[in-house]
Amino acid sequence: MAGERLLAGIEAGGTKFVLAVGTSPTRIVARHTIPTRSPEFTLAEAAEWFEAHGRIDALGIGSFGPLELDSSSSGWGKIATTPKPGWSNCDIAGYFGARLGVPVGFDTDVNAAALAEYTFGSGAAASSLAYITVGTGIGGGLVIDGKAVHGAAHPEMGHIFPRRRALNTDFGGICPVHGDCLEGLACGPAIKARWGASLSELPEDHEAHGVIADYLAQLCHTLFAVSAIELIAMGGGVLKAPGLLDRVRQAAAQLDGGYLPGGSRHRITAPGLGDDAGVIGALLLADCA
Amino acid sequence: MAGERLLAGIEAGGTKFVLAVGTSPTRIVARHTIPTRSPEFTLAEAAEWFEAHGRIDALGIGSFGPLELDSSSSGWGKIATTPKPGWSNCDIAGYFGARLGVPVGFDTDVNAAALAEYTFGSGAAASSLAYITVGTGIGGGLVIDGKAVHGAAHPEMGHIFPRRRALNTDFGGICPVHGDCLEGLACGPAIKARWGASLSELPEDHEAHGVIADYLAQLCHTLFAVSAIELIAMGGGVLKAPGLLDRVRQAAAQLDGGYLPGGSRHRITAPGLGDDAGVIGALLLADCA
Repeated sequence: MAGERLLAGIEAGGTKFVLAVGTSPTRIVARHTIPTRSPEFTLAEAAEWFEAHGRIDALGIGSFGPLELDSSSSGWGKIATTPKPGWSNCDIAGYFGARLGVPVGFDTDVNAAALAEYTFGSGAAASSLAYITVGTGIGGGLVIDGKAVHGAAHPEMGHIFPRRRALNTDFGGICPVHGDCLEGLACGPAIKARWGASLSELPEDHEAHGVIADYLAQLCHTLFAVSAIELIAMGGGVLKAPGLLDRVRQAAAQLDGGYLPGGSRHRITAPGLGDDAGVIGALLLADCA
Repeated sequence: MAGERLLAGIEAGGTKFVLAVGTSPTRIVARHTIPTRSPEFTLAEAAEWFEAHGRIDALGIGSFGPLELDSSSSGWGKIATTPKPGWSNCDIAGYFGARLGVPVGFDTDVNAAALAEYTFGSGAAASSLAYITVGTGIGGGLVIDGKAVHGAAHPEMGHIFPRRRALNTDFGGICPVHGDCLEGLACGPAIKARWGASLSELPEDHEAHGVIADYLAQLCHTLFAVSAIELIAMGGGVLKAPGLLDRVRQAAAQLDGGYLPGGSRHRITAPGLGDDAGVIGALLLADCA
């Protein structure tokens, strides 16, 4: 259609890149998923797919981190130092900007998802929102006053230190830096390392459900207490375990004990956009680029 | 001077009210401190002091919480349910607005102090700032993108649950709701309850210094991780203990282990405005009312 904008989005993850083009963030006309290999392969494959879809007006990238998001820095648009082989200092925004000749919006995958949830998803009526994903790792993005929070760089919520409970300190956690930080204890691979199965595969009465719910509830309580965030949208592979979100809600309420002044205005929910929060967020970044 | 605005500010604390009038937030022309008694006594005494200083143009109140800050609510301007006898539902902003006939700015004492530090103090070059006070209680305010963060109500940072260390779990904490939350473990009265003295009175090699520094560092690390906050200004009576701020910095760096992408952009400092952050913040609230 003449005059209609075509937006492109990349949800750049450690194991796969989800690509999409749309005429608006929520009107996706095509999507495609490619495995994350070396930067050379992956970026070229993504660019070719976009080029096959005609003239694109803007691109948004929601990427795994750590990222350089300081727009006053010459490093802006790069992936910073990462243990992922080959990806440290990859100029991902620069590559696509030059190759596709379009403006590029760039943020973390979880900030992009948080913006999408805030704008179109579960957070439509909230003043502030956190988006948390629990999968291969644990990450979170924050939207306050309509803007993604960057601060000194960007949040890394998986790396807080939840309290260990008595009789529950034998597992050392799998985070290569922190050991038993939240991600080290409660991400998908940590659950597998500790109990030999995913949460969904373990019986309903297995202790793992309560242990993981407690850790995730501690993140929720912490967010409520330090940022008074109104809504937490929590998704990712681990949250597919039946009943987990309810357990997290109950555990968070128990931790609070009715104290926090936000009361029932603090809510924990599934992402309204489901697994599409990330890619819709990337298209939102394109729309604002 | 004709045409010059006269601002009034109240730093309303649980034990004292600090009153000030100024021609700008940082040009204080008179100040006065009164003890916090019943609301009737205290508010009337404060109003009389202001009335003795001539025509005031606006008032700002930075108050102990919990507060009702939702400007779309009929409860706006009140202290919410508090254990402090007589103060629950006290319409503190309404009282002064009606009696002095001026617009009233209203926020938590710590959000007011955070705004003051962000605008005039240690945070002048920071993109985001947390102000934390450790005294009779532990509280914190957040400024992101130049605005105090309210969210569902306002932060209550003292009520996160820091990790307990091995050999350090015998003290149950003094928070009436949570027991051993951060405030229950590390506020001034908790230190007195546990070791019979303030941190400043205990010898330099007493274990208390390291224990308290660890708890406070956990709050700092948590803030860095969940909100990527750039600068933390930490003050209050407990921070007068020699060397404590340095210990907190060292412990926070150790917790992070060089992981967070903000790196050295994350800083922990004393409030640049010293003990005046709260009252200057109240005058700032007046200036914006």
